[in-house]
Formats: sequence, structure tokens, C-alpha cells
Amino acid sequence: MIQAKGYAAQSPTTDLAPWNFDRREVGPHDVQFDILFCGVCHSDLHQIRNDWFPGIFPMVPGHEIVGRVVKVGNHVKKFKAGDLAATGCLVDSCRTCENCREGLEQYCLNGHSLTYNSTEQDGKTPTYGGYSNTIVVHEDFVLHISDKLDLAAVAPLLCAGITTYSPLRHWKVGKGHKLAVLGLGGLGHMAVKFGVAFGAEVTVLSTSPKKEADAKKLGAHHFVLTSSPEQVAAAKGIFDFILDTVSAEHDFALYLSLLKTNGTHICVGVPSKPSEIPPFSIIVGRKSVAGSSIGGLPETQEMLDFCAANNIVSDIELIDIKDIHKAYDRMLKGDVRYRFVIDMASLQ
Amino acid sequence: MIQAKGYAAQSPTTDLAPWNFDRREVGPHDVQFDILFCGVCHSDLHQIRNDWFPGIFPMVPGHEIVGRVVKVGNHVKKFKAGDLAATGCLVDSCRTCENCREGLEQYCLNGHSLTYNSTEQDGKTPTYGGYSNTIVVHEDFVLHISDKLDLAAVAPLLCAGITTYSPLRHWKVGKGHKLAVLGLGGLGHMAVKFGVAFGAEVTVLSTSPKKEADAKKLGAHHFVLTSSPEQVAAAKGIFDFILDTVSAEHDFALYLSLLKTNGTHICVGVPSKPSEIPPFSIIVGRKSVAGSSIGGLPETQEMLDFCAANNIVSDIELIDIKDIHKAYDRMLKGDVRYRFVIDMASLQ
Repeated sequence: MIQAKGYAAQSPTTDLAPWNFDRREVGPHDVQFDILFCGVCHSDLHQIRNDWFPGIFPMVPGHEIVGRVVKVGNHVKKFKAGDLAATGCLVDSCRTCENCREGLEQYCLNGHSLTYNSTEQDGKTPTYGGYSNTIVVHEDFVLHISDKLDLAAVAPLLCAGITTYSPLRHWKVGKGHKLAVLGLGGLGHMAVKFGVAFGAEVTVLSTSPKKEADAKKLGAHHFVLTSSPEQVAAAKGIFDFILDTVSAEHDFALYLSLLKTNGTHICVGVPSKPSEIPPFSIIVGRKSVAGSSIGGLPETQEMLDFCAANNIVSDIELIDIKDIHKAYDRMLKGDVRYRFVIDMASLQ
Repeated sequence: MIQAKGYAAQSPTTDLAPWNFDRREVGPHDVQFDILFCGVCHSDLHQIRNDWFPGIFPMVPGHEIVGRVVKVGNHVKKFKAGDLAATGCLVDSCRTCENCREGLEQYCLNGHSLTYNSTEQDGKTPTYGGYSNTIVVHEDFVLHISDKLDLAAVAPLLCAGITTYSPLRHWKVGKGHKLAVLGLGGLGHMAVKFGVAFGAEVTVLSTSPKKEADAKKLGAHHFVLTSSPEQVAAAKGIFDFILDTVSAEHDFALYLSLLKTNGTHICVGVPSKPSEIPPFSIIVGRKSVAGSSIGGLPETQEMLDFCAANNIVSDIELIDIKDIHKAYDRMLKGDVRYRFVIDMASLQ
């Protein structure tokens, strides 16, 4: 076994703290890479706190992982030692179902293996995430990243990036569309960058007037302060799409009223409680509320290549791993522009 | 003015009773037709009871109206005295907005005039529906119906028919699709007929085992008893579309679990309370919950022509207007196969 060290929560009520654990030996199709940077996702906090469902403890969070390959298995063709490498939310899937065969491993019908708080395909070996110094992953779930981009700022593309890229591509959002981005956090700021890159007219919806300048700086064309009745009234029925990145409870009736006829409200944030949709808010105007989860492996690689070609990365704040709970506290207050990334050198 | 008689609710707490009222004189573009049959829609009861919003009283319900033309205005080209004629849920709209110009008068952006519990485009003259002996409507909102079909059984096509036809056409449901119809009432039984006519593989979902034989008789290929955990388990992830005709509260998480990846749950029933959608139920599998409202005038005529060409009508039970509250009581218990239609001769 490979000795690894990281930060783990031993239970849903304890904070993250240093923990030593084992990773499997590098198998014939495995890639081992040392982790240089790992992004901090809101879902890390949701999961160590059991907000969504009972987790698997000890839990090492982190699924926005970039690093450099140190060892590859005999049969590995895509990577060699010294290459840059990345892993997102998935480390394996059944590979045989209809969705896996189409590269939609995020919707694996037999249950994929998430990067942490999950099990390998044997159904019992727990997976441990990227708040650690090294990781071993089957080459099919390791991605190539460009050496031309700021590596730390690439890390959040593995979750915040693909989670917003995938629905914008699926619903073919682009030129001629008015796109509203709801929430300007880790996901939202990536949604603005991709929306603009795809040619849409992008509006940021936010309850915070402080976000207006930032929204414009990120490339958004317009800003609507949703706490202003006048600004909301002026925005009724104007958007083709709303990309909703908010994971707190929110007022769907309000946002649905901003959609055009046939408009689509796409949820990528995961509130802890069911969303309340008043029937008339979708029936009048033939509107849809849809969901989307991360992206499959082929699309994640496509997104990383698109980012390299278009010089797109996350706006980040680099932190030491010992400050992870301070970062969570600031994240809960929305005090982050726009993603914390752990410098894994701080783990030594 | 034209003296009309009908049945009206004088307030949300009083039952329907005979009432005499005035209709406008036949204007240059108006068609007056004597009402032969009027379908009984669940929304009639919702509206006289203020279930959705405060109504306009006295209220004469009814928006599934068929009859015979008695008089037309000077400029009317589409109809002459003696023709069969029909009117559904709409009697006017702004005619100038983007949606009206596209024949989507059901989504008129400036506010359409519903057939009852609404106002004419002057914003003040109340509209009175089809539980009456005669009606005056602008020719653009009067539809042609075939004399080859049973006229009483055509009436429900004007609401139950178009409400299910329109979304099936919009989402291009047909060959190669697995369609589930949720609820086998007035709307549901029309959804089965149209789904089958469009070539889809149709399954009826119902909590009532008694509906199985009826579902098959209507042409459904399969039946899933949703109160049976075994039958539900066997139906997980198999449908491309669910057409949801239920206007009582129901468990969206359960039904969404029956959809395939990328599946769409289309709501045409209107429960009184917001629908609760657990976030993971749409995010996992990239599913959508959509709404759809009746249909525009061109599509309603298309639907009536399709029904004439394919010999499709509603399954109905003819009632006298004095028995309307008995019919409502039976409707609430689901004791109707599948639509009550008032024989307006009983009003004399």
C-alpha cells in the first residue's frame, strides 16, 4: 500500500484534522499523481456535515484535484511520470451501462465511484479525496491539463468548471440567447465566463449590490439586483435560460417569472430541502426546471481543452490546508472571490 | 344586448344555480352560436371555489363548448348560420405580442381573455362561460368541428384534448418513446389516446388497480400500479416522458425516479400547492419538470382536425345541468369515465 497523508473529518461533528491513510498500490491501469492543488467546493462542507445524506467516515474531501504524475502502471498509455494530471468528482463507474458507454459517467446507472465519500466499484473500499498529498486513479478517470495555465486556478475547473460548462453545452446556450446566472460564487463566476465565451448575453442575478462591479469585471453584460422590485419588474420574461448555482433555499416563483416563454431554469446547486415550484409558474409560459450534474469524462476533457484554448481559469484565493475551516466560514458568508484552492505544499 | 341564461355561482360559497344575464350584440367580427354541449372540467370547480385565486362573481363556468351558429357579423368570413362551432378556454388575446403573433395565444404576454372568470380585452367586461344557452365570440376564437364525430364527445377536446395534445406535439413525443400518463381522468384518457395515435409506447401510472382494464381498453400498452413497490421498482428509469395530469398533491420524487436520463416530467394538472422537487431528483439524470397550458388557436384547430381524421373523441357521460353538483362530487371521487358533458337542452 501507499502511505498517504491528508486532512479528514472523523465524524460529521468533528473538524478536519491531519490523518494518515493508505492508497492502493499502482495497478496496471492506474496513475499515481502527487497533488499540487485542490479546490474547495461547497459540497465538501455539505458532505462532512451530513447535510445531504449520511457520509462515510473518516472522510477526506476534495474533488478538484491537479498534480504531477509520479508513477504509472504497465498498461497505462495516456500518462507518464512527470506529466500534469487532474481528477474531478469521479474515479470510476460501471463502464457498461448505456450512459457510461455514451461518456455520461456522471449518470452511471449502476452507481459510479465518487472521488470521496463513496466506494470503489467493489462496493466496499472507501474513496478518499484530494485534501491529501497523493492519489491513485485508473487512467480512464485521469485528465490531461495544459501547462500554459495557472495550475492552482485550473483545479476548480474539475467541479465548478464542468458543472457549469456541461449544462450550457447540453442546452446549446450561445449566440442569440439571454442567459441569467443566479449566484456569483465558485460555480456562478465560471458560468459567467463560459456563457460569455459561448456568445450569450449574460446577466448576473444577485441579492448583493456589491457583486455588480465583479460581475461586469468577469464579463457579464448586465446585472439585476434581485432585492430591488424595480429591477426585478424590468427583468420579467426576458431570459431564455437561468443557470442556478445557489445551494441555499430560494424563491423559484420569482426567478421563473424572469424566464421567457419556453425558458429553462437549470439547477446545478443542491439545496438541502426540496425546491417549491408553484404549478402556474411553469404552466404559464411552458417553462422548465431542469437539473444537471457535473459532466462525463469526455466532456470534462473537452472543457479543459476549451479552457486552455481560450485562456479560461477560475479566480482563486490560495490557502494553507490548516486554514480550511476559516475558508469554510468565509465561504458560508459568500466572502470568496471565487474559489478557495488549497496549496498542497502546506500539508508537508 | 342578447338575453342569455345559464348556471352561475354567485359567490365562492354558493352552489351553481340558474341565472339570466346579457351577452353583447353580435359585432362585425363576432359569431353567435347556441350551445349544444359543454364539458365539465375540474378547473370549473377549482374556480367557483376560489381554489387558485379570487374569482369574478357571478361566475358562469364552462370552456369546452360546442354548438351551432345562429348569427354572424357583417365581416365574418369563416362561419355562417347553421355551421357547427366550438370555443375552448380563450375568447380573445392582445393579438400583438410575440406569442400571439406566433399563434401561442395561451401564453399572451399582455393577458388573454379566458372564456370565463376573466375579462374582455377592455379589462373590465366579465366573460361568462359555456354553462349557458348561447355565446358571442370573435370569429378568430371560434373553431370548426367536424359533423362526423359525436358532438357531445367533441366538447372535452376543447380543454382536455388540447391540454394533452399540445405538450405531446411540443416535445415531439412519438415513435421510439416510452410515455407514461399519470392519472387516468378527463385529461389522462385523452393523453393515452393521443400518445397511442402518435406512435409512443404508452403506460398508465395509477394508484387504482381498477384503472388497469380501462387503460388497456383506451389503448395503453402497459399499466403500473404506483401503490405497488414491486411494480414501481420494475419501472425505475424507463420513461422518456411523463405526462402528469394530476391536480392533487403528489410525490414528484417517486415519479421522477421512473424517468430515463434526460427525461421530462410535463405537468398539465394544477395542484393548489407548490410542487416539491427534491434537488437530486432532477440533478441526477439531468431531468426536467416542465409545464404546459392548453394550446393556441392554430394548434387547437389542428388538434380538432387530427381528431376528425383519426376518429378520436372523449369518452363521456352526458348529464343534465341540474345535476352539475352531483357530477362534481363524483368527479372529486374519480368516479367518471372520463368526462361529464352537459346536454344544454336540459337548460330549457
